[in-house]
Amino acid sequence: MSAALTLGALAQRFDLTLRGDAGRVIAGVGTLAAGEPGQIGFLANPRYRRELADTRLGAVILSAADADACPVDCLIARNPYAGFARIAALFEPSRAMTPGIHPSAVVAAGADIHPQAAIGALCSIEAGARIEAGAEIGPGCVIGPDCVVGAGTRLVARVTLVTRVTLGRRVLVHPGAVLGADGFGLAFDDGRWLKVPQLGGVRIGDDCEIGANTTIDRGALGDTVLEEDVRLDNQIQIGHNVRIGAHTAMAGCCAVAGSARIGRHCLIAGGVGVAGHLEIGDRVTVQAMSLVSRSLAGPGEYASGLPAADSRSWRRTVARLRRLDAGARRAHPSSEDSRE
Amino acid sequence: MSAALTLGALAQRFDLTLRGDAGRVIAGVGTLAAGEPGQIGFLANPRYRRELADTRLGAVILSAADADACPVDCLIARNPYAGFARIAALFEPSRAMTPGIHPSAVVAAGADIHPQAAIGALCSIEAGARIEAGAEIGPGCVIGPDCVVGAGTRLVARVTLVTRVTLGRRVLVHPGAVLGADGFGLAFDDGRWLKVPQLGGVRIGDDCEIGANTTIDRGALGDTVLEEDVRLDNQIQIGHNVRIGAHTAMAGCCAVAGSARIGRHCLIAGGVGVAGHLEIGDRVTVQAMSLVSRSLAGPGEYASGLPAADSRSWRRTVARLRRLDAGARRAHPSSEDSRE
Amino acid sequence: MSAALTLGALAQRFDLTLRGDAGRVIAGVGTLAAGEPGQIGFLANPRYRRELADTRLGAVILSAADADACPVDCLIARNPYAGFARIAALFEPSRAMTPGIHPSAVVAAGADIHPQAAIGALCSIEAGARIEAGAEIGPGCVIGPDCVVGAGTRLVARVTLVTRVTLGRRVLVHPGAVLGADGFGLAFDDGRWLKVPQLGGVRIGDDCEIGANTTIDRGALGDTVLEEDVRLDNQIQIGHNVRIGAHTAMAGCCAVAGSARIGRHCLIAGGVGVAGHLEIGDRVTVQAMSLVSRSLAGPGEYASGLPAADSRSWRRTVARLRRLDAGARRAHPSSEDSRE
Repeated sequence: MSAALTLGALAQRFDLTLRGDAGRVIAGVGTLAAGEPGQIGFLANPRYRRELADTRLGAVILSAADADACPVDCLIARNPYAGFARIAALFEPSRAMTPGIHPSAVVAAGADIHPQAAIGALCSIEAGARIEAGAEIGPGCVIGPDCVVGAGTRLVARVTLVTRVTLGRRVLVHPGAVLGADGFGLAFDDGRWLKVPQLGGVRIGDDCEIGANTTIDRGALGDTVLEEDVRLDNQIQIGHNVRIGAHTAMAGCCAVAGSARIGRHCLIAGGVGVAGHLEIGDRVTVQAMSLVSRSLAGPGEYASGLPAADSRSWRRTVARLRRLDAGARRAHPSSEDSRE
Repeated sequence: MSAALTLGALAQRFDLTLRGDAGRVIAGVGTLAAGEPGQIGFLANPRYRRELADTRLGAVILSAADADACPVDCLIARNPYAGFARIAALFEPSRAMTPGIHPSAVVAAGADIHPQAAIGALCSIEAGARIEAGAEIGPGCVIGPDCVVGAGTRLVARVTLVTRVTLGRRVLVHPGAVLGADGFGLAFDDGRWLKVPQLGGVRIGDDCEIGANTTIDRGALGDTVLEEDVRLDNQIQIGHNVRIGAHTAMAGCCAVAGSARIGRHCLIAGGVGVAGHLEIGDRVTVQAMSLVSRSLAGPGEYASGLPAADSRSWRRTVARLRRLDAGARRAHPSSEDSRE
Repeated sequence: MSAALTLGALAQRFDLTLRGDAGRVIAGVGTLAAGEPGQIGFLANPRYRRELADTRLGAVILSAADADACPVDCLIARNPYAGFARIAALFEPSRAMTPGIHPSAVVAAGADIHPQAAIGALCSIEAGARIEAGAEIGPGCVIGPDCVVGAGTRLVARVTLVTRVTLGRRVLVHPGAVLGADGFGLAFDDGRWLKVPQLGGVRIGDDCEIGANTTIDRGALGDTVLEEDVRLDNQIQIGHNVRIGAHTAMAGCCAVAGSARIGRHCLIAGGVGVAGHLEIGDRVTVQAMSLVSRSLAGPGEYASGLPAADSRSWRRTVARLRRLDAGARRAHPSSEDSRE
């Protein structure tokens, strides 16, 4: 945690335009609604603009368009949220990262652990794993054979890398995530399921983030791939041989079935399902709880979520929807199935 | 596990009306369909009323309206399911809770553990954590810095509290749950993602229950909050700075995006998605797999789930639904986008 | 990993029809698009037929109908994917399974562990658990009281069996799965929730597979049951007292609410929700992200997923859908609620 800083020093350090008292001391960060005079906050989402007039914050980071309405000192930024992110990082509690292997960790003879890596309590690192310089493996992690954890990467706690998982540099993986489990490959034969060996791995690019309890299966043949700077929220499921392009972000509870390809710079909202073996182009936005069942060209914005309505009204809507088909068929009895 | 009890004793203890043999011995609990003469069961869901006539149970807990149709002894209750819950608890196998720290647990020097707390095998408790009297930390849990586990709270096994998580009293957390991981805060800047520090925590009220593999992120600024007696099923995702009111229950696989506020006494069915920065009032029911994309007033019942139909018929319905828009635009070519 | 094999030997071993050079040496497996001359691949999904002409693979497993279009040697199979599964298994890296208990594991005095079972690093096995011959418990697992792990069953890593869980033979459970946690049983009484004891267990049949971070709750009264050869992908939620018939497969992120019964040989696609207390017949297919809110007869194929569309067009469709109900009510003001 940093010592207090002046508003003038913050403006200079992050190349922001100061409007107000350069000597004002900022000792922390807060929200428009609940912040205090010694704190700095931000306004980025217009939904919160109404909170500006009554804020008790000492200063606010905002865009030029909002500056005139600000009743306190401000820092004007092209991108107020990014400006806030950089300033807030100064006030984040620092964590000590002490290289070395905790005595309770179980490290197999054939594991290759850099002396500048940290292995936490009660981890299990199997033979054939490699942990690079500055990597930090939190408590309770399991690192299986043929897994590589790149320099500066952090597994927060209780992360499992099953087999043939390679993480790039500065990757952040949250607790409960499971990378490199078997893909769901099954052939039906003679009345029962036959398991299809999953011989590939997982490759995660530099600067990716993987949310809590997210699962990324390893490839059947070839690898499941996240390019650099992909950001996955919690409880996302990524099937085998999926490829996700650089800088794509995906919110919680999405599921991507096997061999789908998602482009670069996509924004996938929460609860979206993506079917297997299709392609989503670059710069595609998909709204919450949509089902992507065919390829989508990019750039573009797509949706199929239905907003909740009063449930009596919704029941009637569902009934009318059903009759749409029946009615059309009465009117045109020869009409064929639509199979679009 | 309790010794056998008589029906009369049960009626008296739980203030229920007995119809039948007060001396009948009850040695356990069972279902209407599969229960045995020494057992007591219940009828609450009308769906199972048809099973009453043929039950082999020794006695049934039910409402006054169902008593005449009961072929065996019964206990009449205003709330038969609650009556059953209390009686079944008498037959639950008891678990021994032995205070103390298992020798395989790793407890940092700066952790504050009450002598009447129990720390299970292979737990990792970091500096700055506090575990209060009667709390029980099952095997394989990870408790990070600045976390507090209240009196009488139980973490069943393999639970992770990442940082700044405070659990009230008598909270029950099931395996695989992750509380206090980073919220999904990202600013897009200069062509790539910039992480927004997540400086808040998580506060869980007394008597809450958190399901297996559920994730609750910590706040960005300020805390993510569950008030008292909130009940979350498995695999629920709660984003940063969400607030959930007292006595609300949420079924499996729901997802609530950041900064949403959900009222008190709400019932949220399985698979519901709630968008961020909105408000759901008190006593709101949301039906399964609905998408809440704007604020909902309470009390009320809302839905947007579509029941599965025969897939050929469904394909035609989808096609007609698409044509609704095209047809309307042909008829009124000047009509504007609806942006309701 | 097997030594290289000839195409003739593979044809003979798996009873496939060879077209080409019986002496061709096969040293591994690959895809049509990226495979190399020393490898064998397969063609099963017609979507990939266009990749056949340019393949560099040494040989392809395919159906008789595709053989003439194959530019390289081939093995003709009635079920090419199953043929591939068997051949690929020959090239899977072998894992050593060494019976015995890792010294870092914590095994309670009252646990019954077969000498031919393997208990991995940092496992916790509680009193009353039984691990049978050839079972393999990977690192970081927790096995609670009254749990049985059958012969030849493998828990990959960090699996939790909470209480009263019986796994059959040759079951495979992936990391992060939680079996036997409390079902979500609550009675509302006197303004707050009362927990309903969950007195049953979980029974998993032979040859089942349970995906990463999947949760299967134990029964309230009686057991939650998966019959033999049920295959569950990752992040599936199975409520208490659910029963799933033999040979049914369910893709990622499905949720099945309490007491639902699903038949044999069903195929449930990803993200499907099944409401409680209903029945799905044998040989039912449910398409992705459908909501099953009443019983479905089998055999049959059902759906209610909506494919994503351009979001402007989708907004208009949603608006028209809403007006369907309003319009019909204006035309027939006396019409009753539909409650179908």
